[in-house]
Amino acid sequence: MRMAIAPFPEWSAEVLATTESSLEALLPGTGAAGDLLAPLHEAMRYAVLAGGKRVRPLLVHAAGEITGASRQALDQAGCAVELIHAYSLVHDDMPCMDNDVLRRGKPTVHVAYGEALAMLVGDALQALAFRAVAATLEGGVAPVNVVTMTRELADAAGSIGMAGGQAIDLAAVGHSLSRESLEDMHRRKTGAMLTVSVRLGANCGKSPNPAEQALLDDYCAAVGLAFQVVDDVLDVEADTTTLGKTAGKDAQANKPTYVSLLGLAGARDLAESLRLRAHRALAPFGPQAARLGELADLIVLRRS
Amino acid sequence: MRMAIAPFPEWSAEVLATTESSLEALLPGTGAAGDLLAPLHEAMRYAVLAGGKRVRPLLVHAAGEITGASRQALDQAGCAVELIHAYSLVHDDMPCMDNDVLRRGKPTVHVAYGEALAMLVGDALQALAFRAVAATLEGGVAPVNVVTMTRELADAAGSIGMAGGQAIDLAAVGHSLSRESLEDMHRRKTGAMLTVSVRLGANCGKSPNPAEQALLDDYCAAVGLAFQVVDDVLDVEADTTTLGKTAGKDAQANKPTYVSLLGLAGARDLAESLRLRAHRALAPFGPQAARLGELADLIVLRRS
Repeated sequence: MRMAIAPFPEWSAEVLATTESSLEALLPGTGAAGDLLAPLHEAMRYAVLAGGKRVRPLLVHAAGEITGASRQALDQAGCAVELIHAYSLVHDDMPCMDNDVLRRGKPTVHVAYGEALAMLVGDALQALAFRAVAATLEGGVAPVNVVTMTRELADAAGSIGMAGGQAIDLAAVGHSLSRESLEDMHRRKTGAMLTVSVRLGANCGKSPNPAEQALLDDYCAAVGLAFQVVDDVLDVEADTTTLGKTAGKDAQANKPTYVSLLGLAGARDLAESLRLRAHRALAPFGPQAARLGELADLIVLRRS
Repeated sequence: MRMAIAPFPEWSAEVLATTESSLEALLPGTGAAGDLLAPLHEAMRYAVLAGGKRVRPLLVHAAGEITGASRQALDQAGCAVELIHAYSLVHDDMPCMDNDVLRRGKPTVHVAYGEALAMLVGDALQALAFRAVAATLEGGVAPVNVVTMTRELADAAGSIGMAGGQAIDLAAVGHSLSRESLEDMHRRKTGAMLTVSVRLGANCGKSPNPAEQALLDDYCAAVGLAFQVVDDVLDVEADTTTLGKTAGKDAQANKPTYVSLLGLAGARDLAESLRLRAHRALAPFGPQAARLGELADLIVLRRS
């Protein structure tokens, strides 16, 4: 019960610290001098450690509060979703994709280590994510739940999820996408991994019943969309220093955004209504869902 | 027992047919006109279907003969290793890596679909591989074995396995690698996925005991190394038409090979001694291991 009443900043700081040390332990060390794998492992650590808001691991841990999951299992599940996120950023930044040189205020992986190694970094981080899912077994998760989590993460990361959303994004550059198609793209590109974060966290404990799962899915749909709407707003409002990546990039690339579709005020209103919808979905869970509610606020009210 | 006495060409033709139809079913369809995911899914199918020797699925099925695994489970495990292999070829062929334009006699994926989509194809195929591992559950594999298989595939594909081997390969271009380092590279780059094919196939049935596992690992070590030695020999001997990819590429790139290290005759002798070592490791299993023995022969005696 201690966790349920700690102020959010304390709780999130603790989750971030434990996530950081779990990622640190999962990522291979850079070894002794002459270790032929050292360049790859150094670049993987560069891509993952000491950066990022860790929104996905926070969602994993918050969902685990509802189902009484163990901290150890949640740590591994949190690493899994963060590693998928990290790999997607490495590949997305490459010259053949967004060609970004700055990420979290540092040179992107391909700038720092070359394109070939950057591709391998992404590939290896994806594999490590599934290694982390398997490691939830040692955190007391039932084997059949671990298999479910593997399947769900594969779908969320793959061609009907995140990778599919990126492919739609590619095809959409320079085209005017309908609002329906834009939402479909973001549901895959960003929403799928946010949703699976909640699912993995919940599955680390006592599996939710169908009614509970439907409420959690509705929460995820609202938060996933809000996340993207706020990203689009920040892309217009923020400067590059605050954002830690190149600002105004999407507008420059003539990519459709919620701001171009609804205007700045319209996009802000949409984000707020989605935040309220997320809270409504959580209401039946009572205080156990407080962390998920606080994360909805964090996602909508963030400044970067 | 029927399977145990069918001639090898019949057995392998049946495995190849069932692998092809399982891959076909696992890969998402290209859907209706206007499906925004159609380009990605079409490119994924192009990368995987109708091509390749399917050595890894054959190893999966052959190993499953020893442990009495179900055909359904072996099909999914075979798809898993083949999908990892297919993704690695797509990424390896890209301009920032080997910059190959021809694969299995067809334009490589990035030539046919562009670099950005090729990267996403590889990423999505890796996710789908783990989806296939999870699907062995429906083939009757114990959940805890599915988790073991997930962990083993992640290690074999990741930074201490295949991706790590490729990173060493990158760093080795233009350098003279010691024979020890060359073997370490190939053990990761090619050997890890061949080894995990045998492990996954065996784990689909009654798990091998430690003594049996040690014998299978020795078989894999011999076959994995032989595979690479023969690749190097063929790269020198064969012309581009027979090979279905650009011949002489490694020598041109000044990459160290077994031929440059041992000469053509020396490399051929090494391959043959590895083939015999593979057969010795299988001897204690008796006739149940006949298929693995035949695959060792296939790998060493192939002409492309």
